[in-house]
Amino acid sequence: MNSFKFDLLHTDPHSQARRGRIHTRRGVIETPIFMPVGTQATVKAMLPENLKEVGAQIILANTYHLFLRPGHELVKRLGGLHAFMNWDKPILTDSGGFQVFSLGDLRKITEEGVRFQSHLDGSSHVLTPESSISVQQALGADIIMAFDECIPYPATREYVQDSTDRSSRWAQRCKKAHDGTDGSALFGIVQGGMYSDLRRKSAEELMHIGFDGYAVGGLSVGEEAPLMYDMMAQTLPLLPKDRPRYVMGVGTPENLIEGVDRGVDMFDCVMPTRNARNGVLFTSFGKISIKQARYVDDPAPVDPACDCYVCRHYSRAYLRHLYQSGEILSSVLNTYHNVHYYLKLMEGARQAIASGSFQDYKKDFYRLRQGND
Amino acid sequence: MNSFKFDLLHTDPHSQARRGRIHTRRGVIETPIFMPVGTQATVKAMLPENLKEVGAQIILANTYHLFLRPGHELVKRLGGLHAFMNWDKPILTDSGGFQVFSLGDLRKITEEGVRFQSHLDGSSHVLTPESSISVQQALGADIIMAFDECIPYPATREYVQDSTDRSSRWAQRCKKAHDGTDGSALFGIVQGGMYSDLRRKSAEELMHIGFDGYAVGGLSVGEEAPLMYDMMAQTLPLLPKDRPRYVMGVGTPENLIEGVDRGVDMFDCVMPTRNARNGVLFTSFGKISIKQARYVDDPAPVDPACDCYVCRHYSRAYLRHLYQSGEILSSVLNTYHNVHYYLKLMEGARQAIASGSFQDYKKDFYRLRQGND
Repeated sequence: MNSFKFDLLHTDPHSQARRGRIHTRRGVIETPIFMPVGTQATVKAMLPENLKEVGAQIILANTYHLFLRPGHELVKRLGGLHAFMNWDKPILTDSGGFQVFSLGDLRKITEEGVRFQSHLDGSSHVLTPESSISVQQALGADIIMAFDECIPYPATREYVQDSTDRSSRWAQRCKKAHDGTDGSALFGIVQGGMYSDLRRKSAEELMHIGFDGYAVGGLSVGEEAPLMYDMMAQTLPLLPKDRPRYVMGVGTPENLIEGVDRGVDMFDCVMPTRNARNGVLFTSFGKISIKQARYVDDPAPVDPACDCYVCRHYSRAYLRHLYQSGEILSSVLNTYHNVHYYLKLMEGARQAIASGSFQDYKKDFYRLRQGND
Repeated sequence: MNSFKFDLLHTDPHSQARRGRIHTRRGVIETPIFMPVGTQATVKAMLPENLKEVGAQIILANTYHLFLRPGHELVKRLGGLHAFMNWDKPILTDSGGFQVFSLGDLRKITEEGVRFQSHLDGSSHVLTPESSISVQQALGADIIMAFDECIPYPATREYVQDSTDRSSRWAQRCKKAHDGTDGSALFGIVQGGMYSDLRRKSAEELMHIGFDGYAVGGLSVGEEAPLMYDMMAQTLPLLPKDRPRYVMGVGTPENLIEGVDRGVDMFDCVMPTRNARNGVLFTSFGKISIKQARYVDDPAPVDPACDCYVCRHYSRAYLRHLYQSGEILSSVLNTYHNVHYYLKLMEGARQAIASGSFQDYKKDFYRLRQGND
């Protein structure tokens, strides 16, 4: 039985921004939302309790990585990904397609699916639309993504058309393979590269198949931000209003604000977690690199406007010391702060949309970081 | 004003084991106790809140490391080590001697002190009894250790005698340099290598100077366990009953139990934290190496007899996966479990001594790990 449902609660009168609520079998997700990425059954350097403290409602896990290690069958035997990693809120899994297609020479595409070699040990594997769904169901994902090709940029129109057509055929096979009786939802992924007519064709084909939600894939793949925003603006209005819209692999805080403005409900990106491990911290006034000498004896918190655990208890000087000393706590504290930042940014957007002040929220966002970043 | 005090609460009728209570300016420490090591102003991979959850009452920080990076003056400007690292319970700092003497060719001993080169950048520094005390006071330590030489093993009687005599002279200078008006306590360190008459001489000289507590240094430096236990047994009864006794850098769970049996009140060691990062976990039935293939799909917790956060929420299979995947959470969870194990072992010892059942506690400890470890 599919308990998945999306309620559209508010729409910004001056933009496409939406305030919504997704109902899943593992509880509610208030949108717009950012999903921290838990690639290998852990959001790097964060305990599940820390994730909840900073307001995470849903996390993303990577099918490709878990398929190879520890293996989806093992995860299933151990009670599924939620039990395995001690996370009882919703999990969205990607289809594995993005990583497989990133393997370059190590993979071969056919109509059936993709044959690829593991980046871990070179062993040979096949992912098809059917097996991707099966793996995601074994993992116990609450939101399952259709298996598609994330098209590189730039790409010729011919390549994009062929690939997008194949992704549509694969989407049909995913829909057929997805047994919704477990209560999981299935999202289709709009492709079409940077060609708006191919985006439209892809969206129409997916809507014809019918999905619980719709993602826009193939963005943030090297194109300039204005082109990405243009693709969002042209694609999102094509999608049904009563289904969540997810832009995959995006992005910077600016990307999120612009995405929300164009009607995106869900985001994911490794940026807050990966940057944290490299000492780059997000603040209301832009990014800072904590390794800089200027912070050596700075008693201020990372962001004086932030009320997170890290900003309440630690100075920039301490965080710089941890980074310079190669301490594990550096990754732990930096990640905590950055994920908190991303989730607060979305919480603020939700409140602003609900109260009709999203355009002010957006203006404030840019005003505060003027001259920085 | 020195608020430091030791209450001897119970003594085991069948051994030298003691149940005590140390009063410091930052609160009470129930003994016997294990002190987790926070070398660089962080117990590696543990948040201060996690340390409190597992029952840490006091941690150790390393003067040598903090002296070089970020520097004790910087720490002082930022409010001292407690504020810097967000730890409001007692901190004991070592004197820097142990690390400096480990530098081998990079250091030179004179009567004045030790000249050494930083392991970080080769820069030249001097530590003397006076400067070591001054650095430890700048850090804001609640328990300050006298500056001494930790004698290597094996060593000739002549070397040990000369070194121990010099350490006694240095201890006198430390006592003179230590201004107790800040409320910090000063511990002397008994040396004497593996020569019991030199240990006695050292203890007597230190007692003549008079310290708030007495440590036994220069153990766990490569000697066999029976020799270490013999040195403890011969040295500890010489020390005043109304002062805490601290055996430095020790050790394994067995070492702790045997140390308690011989009258030790305080221990510190990197073993639980370092082993954790290498995937070695302590349990009631001995050590396990979580990387072993046998744990690949083991749904059991690390130690079914353990009630720590990690054992309540994660399987051996998950911990093995994290270790194999090189995830930061591997160090976080393993460290949490190991430090919890060490602190629970001491908590159990305290209860057993108080109830007169320490010998049963010791027997159970060995019985459970029979055939393992």
